Amino acid sequence: MTDPSAWITLLTDFGYRDAYVGILKGVIAQIAPTAATLDLTHGIPPQDIALASWQLQMAASHFPPGTIHLVVVDPGVGSRRRAIALHIGPHFFIGPDNGVFTGVLSQHTLTEAVCLNHPEWWYTPTPSNSFHGRDIFAPVAAHLSQGVPLHRLGTPIPPDGLVRLTGFDSQDPLDVDQGWIQAIDHFGNLMTTLPAMALPPTWCLILKDSRIQGRPCYEAVPPGTPVALGGSHGYLEIAINGGNAQYFFQAQVGDRVVFQAR
Amino acid sequence: MTDPSAWITLLTDFGYRDAYVGILKGVIAQIAPTAATLDLTHGIPPQDIALASWQLQMAASHFPPGTIHLVVVDPGVGSRRRAIALHIGPHFFIGPDNGVFTGVLSQHTLTEAVCLNHPEWWYTPTPSNSFHGRDIFAPVAAHLSQGVPLHRLGTPIPPDGLVRLTGFDSQDPLDVDQGWIQAIDHFGNLMTTLPAMALPPTWCLILKDSRIQGRPCYEAVPPGTPVALGGSHGYLEIAINGGNAQYFFQAQVGDRVVFQAR
Amino acid sequence: MTDPSAWITLLTDFGYRDAYVGILKGVIAQIAPTAATLDLTHGIPPQDIALASWQLQMAASHFPPGTIHLVVVDPGVGSRRRAIALHIGPHFFIGPDNGVFTGVLSQHTLTEAVCLNHPEWWYTPTPSNSFHGRDIFAPVAAHLSQGVPLHRLGTPIPPDGLVRLTGFDSQDPLDVDQGWIQAIDHFGNLMTTLPAMALPPTWCLILKDSRIQGRPCYEAVPPGTPVALGGSHGYLEIAINGGNAQYFFQAQVGDRVVFQAR
Repeated sequence: MTDPSAWITLLTDFGYRDAYVGILKGVIAQIAPTAATLDLTHGIPPQDIALASWQLQMAASHFPPGTIHLVVVDPGVGSRRRAIALHIGPHFFIGPDNGVFTGVLSQHTLTEAVCLNHPEWWYTPTPSNSFHGRDIFAPVAAHLSQGVPLHRLGTPIPPDGLVRLTGFDSQDPLDVDQGWIQAIDHFGNLMTTLPAMALPPTWCLILKDSRIQGRPCYEAVPPGTPVALGGSHGYLEIAINGGNAQYFFQAQVGDRVVFQAR
Repeated sequence: MTDPSAWITLLTDFGYRDAYVGILKGVIAQIAPTAATLDLTHGIPPQDIALASWQLQMAASHFPPGTIHLVVVDPGVGSRRRAIALHIGPHFFIGPDNGVFTGVLSQHTLTEAVCLNHPEWWYTPTPSNSFHGRDIFAPVAAHLSQGVPLHRLGTPIPPDGLVRLTGFDSQDPLDVDQGWIQAIDHFGNLMTTLPAMALPPTWCLILKDSRIQGRPCYEAVPPGTPVALGGSHGYLEIAINGGNAQYFFQAQVGDRVVFQAR
Repeated sequence: MTDPSAWITLLTDFGYRDAYVGILKGVIAQIAPTAATLDLTHGIPPQDIALASWQLQMAASHFPPGTIHLVVVDPGVGSRRRAIALHIGPHFFIGPDNGVFTGVLSQHTLTEAVCLNHPEWWYTPTPSNSFHGRDIFAPVAAHLSQGVPLHRLGTPIPPDGLVRLTGFDSQDPLDVDQGWIQAIDHFGNLMTTLPAMALPPTWCLILKDSRIQGRPCYEAVPPGTPVALGGSHGYLEIAINGGNAQYFFQAQVGDRVVFQAR
């Protein structure tokens, strides 16, 4: 009945057919047997850094303080892209410096950032050029969970030097009624960039010439009918009661969405 | 080398592309750091309450006494459907009152049922209308695992008021030789409603004008050949040795199956 | 902050739609509450013993000594195929004797092998004929993790009697420049049988009349371009930077690949 010494979450684009995720957990088990690993998801489409950033932003804050979030969506593995570790709000983040932390950087304050260039914390001093998840990120996360302080894992880097995705982490503050679809989930629900707060009594979203009325829940409309609602992650979303809005609207990430207060 | 304080299993239709399941585990880790979470499956097709009921019925009894089974297949989230917690046999069950517990209610005795209407056990007093898994079910499961008794989680509800799926949990006892396909698994094996007990020496199942001979195991017939056998969950099933009976027979849940003792 | 008493990894072809994997974990939790289960993968295509062997070979050595690797890819369940437990290198392996351990047997020394014919360690003395994962393999793994020695789990069997896949675990040592694709991963990367060591300064692989230049990492070539590199598991591999080599080359396991040192 004791706590794990730390939680390490895993978010990758490794999919579910290979044992790659298992290998990350094996490396962590070797170095940090008392840490507990938890999967965020491994179903990020290959190399989809923007979706990884969204999923991480949506999930990270729901974990205990001190949780280490390990992200391996890493098309630039083995190139000059940096391997980094960040202290953002109450959590740690480890992964490639390719923009995957854009979402969480927009939410909380960055207090420390290092480049993971100290091979003594790696799985091997001669890492492969195609699996830094196994050779660098997982072992560094494991050592961090065992009490090695962040500043010993590598060289400090200035916050403004981190790679960030553009057009993702912020909204033009002068045009709060114009947004776009920033993510589409497994149910086909369309997550917009429009914040779900201070909503008027009646409102709607406009997507592709369709006016979709805002309602309190999916079942407030008949089955098969579009519905807009304040999503659970702080943004307005578009759904179909019992159906799939992505298919219904032939919607894509980036599609324009307009808010109207009536 | 200590036990977890409790096991909490997770069964959802969240799929594997989003971090929703990870969020449930994060919320549980915050409230119940000594509990261990185990995934039953998150591959239930969206809103398929009947399949969720079957999977839960198949799996629940194989866990230690006191295990908490958390089910989030919840198309009515945010509507008037109730959030409930049940004590059935040696296990606890938490989820929406939409019929998803029909299978386990048919197997074991219900001893206590409450409606989860006490916000002090929720993740937030103002839950979203689209993610009760995060805001109500997971935190309540976590508190239950830490020793909060069921009767403190909500108001008692009468057992006969629970929503149950029809045509699922029982068979006409006068017609034991007529059944239907109640579930189809990942291998394409067809699970019937016909009980696998007291079988005569030779028997067969009839599906769509095909007579499929009962045999002791898949490999008792040549590769690519249909075979009927007593499945591992107590029901007769139809399979193809090395193949996929769902595709072979173009079978669907609900298809009629007849048992013959020869 | 204590270690688990042992790690038990799970590798199956059960997929992610059913609760079968969850059932294995429930059985283990009942018998070995202090063991920790970790998923290698459950996405092995149904009955694909060769891919299971490759995934296990790739992953097994990255776990702590004493780890128990439980493999259930078992088309012959219920037939005369043997259930076995092996001690190979520092790890234990439990599963059907159908060739699934060919890869790990080629890597490390087998020191003990038993046939799992002692029903006192099973989940039930009368196991089903279709789910030995639940009825034999998982409970035996759980007992092994609790300290029951291997020789008590069954009758010793001679090492040369184990089923092995042919054409998988070795290469003609006189023809080191000829190989084939032995596995294809989720990213569409093509894993060859050609060892990734002692590479000359310039080299290439030839697949289907295409000459693919060896480079240090994926991003060493423009997006959408083929690249060969020394893979992270000790073999040469073929990839597309930011793309999918399986689709690009219409490649299949078994396709011939030739190494050239220039």
